[in-house]
Amino acid sequence: MPNIANDPLRKSWINVPENSDFPIQNIPFGVFITKEDVITIGTRIGNCAIDMGALQQLGYFEGIELTDDMFMQDTLNDFISDGRKTWRLVRNRLAEIFDENNPLLRDNKDHREVVIFKVEDIEMLLPVQIGDYTDFYSSKEHATNVGKMFRDPENALLPNWLHIPVGYHGRSSTIVPSGIPVHRPYGQTLPNGETTPVFGPSKLVDFELETAFITTDANLMGEPIPVEEAEEHIFGMVLFNDWSARDIQKWEYVPLGPFLAKNFASSISPWIVTMDALEPFRTKGPEQSPEPLPYLKQKGEKAFDINLEVAIQPENAVETVVSRSNFKYMYWSMAQQLAHHTINGCRVNSGDMMGSGTISGPTEDSFGSMLELSWGGQKPLKMNDGSERKFINDNDTVIIRGFCQKDNLRIGFGEVSSKLLPAVELKF
Amino acid sequence: MPNIANDPLRKSWINVPENSDFPIQNIPFGVFITKEDVITIGTRIGNCAIDMGALQQLGYFEGIELTDDMFMQDTLNDFISDGRKTWRLVRNRLAEIFDENNPLLRDNKDHREVVIFKVEDIEMLLPVQIGDYTDFYSSKEHATNVGKMFRDPENALLPNWLHIPVGYHGRSSTIVPSGIPVHRPYGQTLPNGETTPVFGPSKLVDFELETAFITTDANLMGEPIPVEEAEEHIFGMVLFNDWSARDIQKWEYVPLGPFLAKNFASSISPWIVTMDALEPFRTKGPEQSPEPLPYLKQKGEKAFDINLEVAIQPENAVETVVSRSNFKYMYWSMAQQLAHHTINGCRVNSGDMMGSGTISGPTEDSFGSMLELSWGGQKPLKMNDGSERKFINDNDTVIIRGFCQKDNLRIGFGEVSSKLLPAVELKF
Repeated sequence: MPNIANDPLRKSWINVPENSDFPIQNIPFGVFITKEDVITIGTRIGNCAIDMGALQQLGYFEGIELTDDMFMQDTLNDFISDGRKTWRLVRNRLAEIFDENNPLLRDNKDHREVVIFKVEDIEMLLPVQIGDYTDFYSSKEHATNVGKMFRDPENALLPNWLHIPVGYHGRSSTIVPSGIPVHRPYGQTLPNGETTPVFGPSKLVDFELETAFITTDANLMGEPIPVEEAEEHIFGMVLFNDWSARDIQKWEYVPLGPFLAKNFASSISPWIVTMDALEPFRTKGPEQSPEPLPYLKQKGEKAFDINLEVAIQPENAVETVVSRSNFKYMYWSMAQQLAHHTINGCRVNSGDMMGSGTISGPTEDSFGSMLELSWGGQKPLKMNDGSERKFINDNDTVIIRGFCQKDNLRIGFGEVSSKLLPAVELKF
Repeated sequence: MPNIANDPLRKSWINVPENSDFPIQNIPFGVFITKEDVITIGTRIGNCAIDMGALQQLGYFEGIELTDDMFMQDTLNDFISDGRKTWRLVRNRLAEIFDENNPLLRDNKDHREVVIFKVEDIEMLLPVQIGDYTDFYSSKEHATNVGKMFRDPENALLPNWLHIPVGYHGRSSTIVPSGIPVHRPYGQTLPNGETTPVFGPSKLVDFELETAFITTDANLMGEPIPVEEAEEHIFGMVLFNDWSARDIQKWEYVPLGPFLAKNFASSISPWIVTMDALEPFRTKGPEQSPEPLPYLKQKGEKAFDINLEVAIQPENAVETVVSRSNFKYMYWSMAQQLAHHTINGCRVNSGDMMGSGTISGPTEDSFGSMLELSWGGQKPLKMNDGSERKFINDNDTVIIRGFCQKDNLRIGFGEVSSKLLPAVELKF
């Protein structure tokens, strides 16, 4: 099936502003609600949200085998279940419908009125019902930084790290789309030098700059997915802010890993950018040494060149970009993560989400968390409004942006933006 | 709302064998499929499975506010969402329908034929769609045993353990009901004395004797649940075998916790026994010292006296009971676990499952895993068929049973039984 939606020369009859993340070559998928309370699956071109449920009802997907209500749903899970061939057919069809030379919808005002919305007139919802969520820990720079601060500076990387795409399970129930504010969490922490914990709001709330990929039904229980097949089961990617409370984490995480320090909230960008759209941005990942075990050995370019940045915007003030990183720094690829995840027969379903882990680059201004950027609070960051930050303050908004750029083609994710509200008032 | 279903004097017109786990005072809830491929919600009395979907269609739940298809579903999630008042109304009604003095269904042969099945004629399915699954680590004896073996015998319990009901996230996608066999998982392990890992089937597959509780929609994101309200949000309990691959676990679990060592499979008993049915078996839990932080401080009897046992049955041989333990040994209560889980605002939904952690008792024959029973393989167990076990062999069936007993009342869980199959043949 040719991926004609990627044709770099195609232009849309919908206006696409310069430097938009959403040219007609992107065609991401999401779920939104209109002002009339209609929930639908949709895509985006420029600053227009496109109601794919309406398009389907009007017959625009005829000839593609789809259930009748495929796009009139509140999650993409069923569509993702249909597999790569269907994703590509639908994306190709959308490219054709919105091609500047295609008059079918372009010249039908009645249809356009029920299909096309301004993005400011809709609200983006969570695009999938996330069954299971796994977070990896696949940036060597991040793992090294954390090891230096919390463990042994001389042996920062743990012995298993270069052999295993280390990962752990997270909580699906508190993954929210961009725009939903998050409360500073309560928890237990151990003050420095004390042996008895205290209770209160976390004092060290942090972001983690991550991406996440969304899978299709990849295997049955008991069936490992070979690394060379793994990419076939990845639908697309989003930006991911893995909110973390560092003081809660430090006290709780030995021996079973982070728990309440992470599961109060994670925020994602709402448009899933497909792996098909990201195809032109493949690149070589870091050299892997020692050589991975055979079940993790991969060929070809399995990394993706995605520019990432994090900005902090204090209330009523200008934002400050605090980090510029890139997804290509990841030591372990998504294919390796998925192969590892299933080598024991673990079942992966449509709508499962897997986070990359914090994506830190090699330089101090490319670190993916305040923990690293302020080096545990020792080096506060200067903000554009004159204030300083060691971690995230109440009412700060954290914004992660990401896009790929090659020649004149830019494919982006938009942003995941979420405000940290003060801790709630406890009723007990 | 009186809990009349618990009346210990009530008898059913369905025959209940002596020592059955399922007298008319139990009335657990589950989901099953009939030989005619009908999937329904049901309950069990003695050795009869009762089709609650059929009962509803025949009008037996009239007067109780329920959606029309409440019991004609393949999960209990919606019913659980309806909350404690509805659970109690339905359980009370079922007690009345099957009361020996009630002729309504008893004397209606046509109705009986579509409502009542022999348990050997149906197949039990997973009773809930599990959104998120959390596993706690709440037995002091288990945490101490593991600490002695893997860390420091002098300081076996980690500093946070007496302050925090330690927990971590697990994987929902591989939780299966009793009867589904499980394959020995592949993975990376580090041979003793080596620095480079090897790949192959786990050599140290283990069970973990646990229970799990199932929650209702308990809170909104950001809202902690007070410890004194927590039990209101617990629907019921099941037996839980948290299959574990000890050699994979040892190599992977630092610093982010167990992952592939656990997520290849977990097995549950299929009938959810309600907290209402377990009410008569409340008891005092272990003394908690130091005193928990205020948000974890509880009053009254929050433990439950549930006898537990684990048997191993080699292929074509008699079984051997390898452990006898009790749920009342748990240091942290379910109420404390749920209060802790949500103190940071983590959202809990209908159908979420929370494992107790391995339930080890104080004596060597009450430990809840082979790791502890064979003390890391140093003390093989003698089996009734003459063989020995350090861990679980291929084609062994592991059976966990549990029941409460007080005076003449026995309320049980049945069993969770699952066979460990050899590792699959890899196709790559």
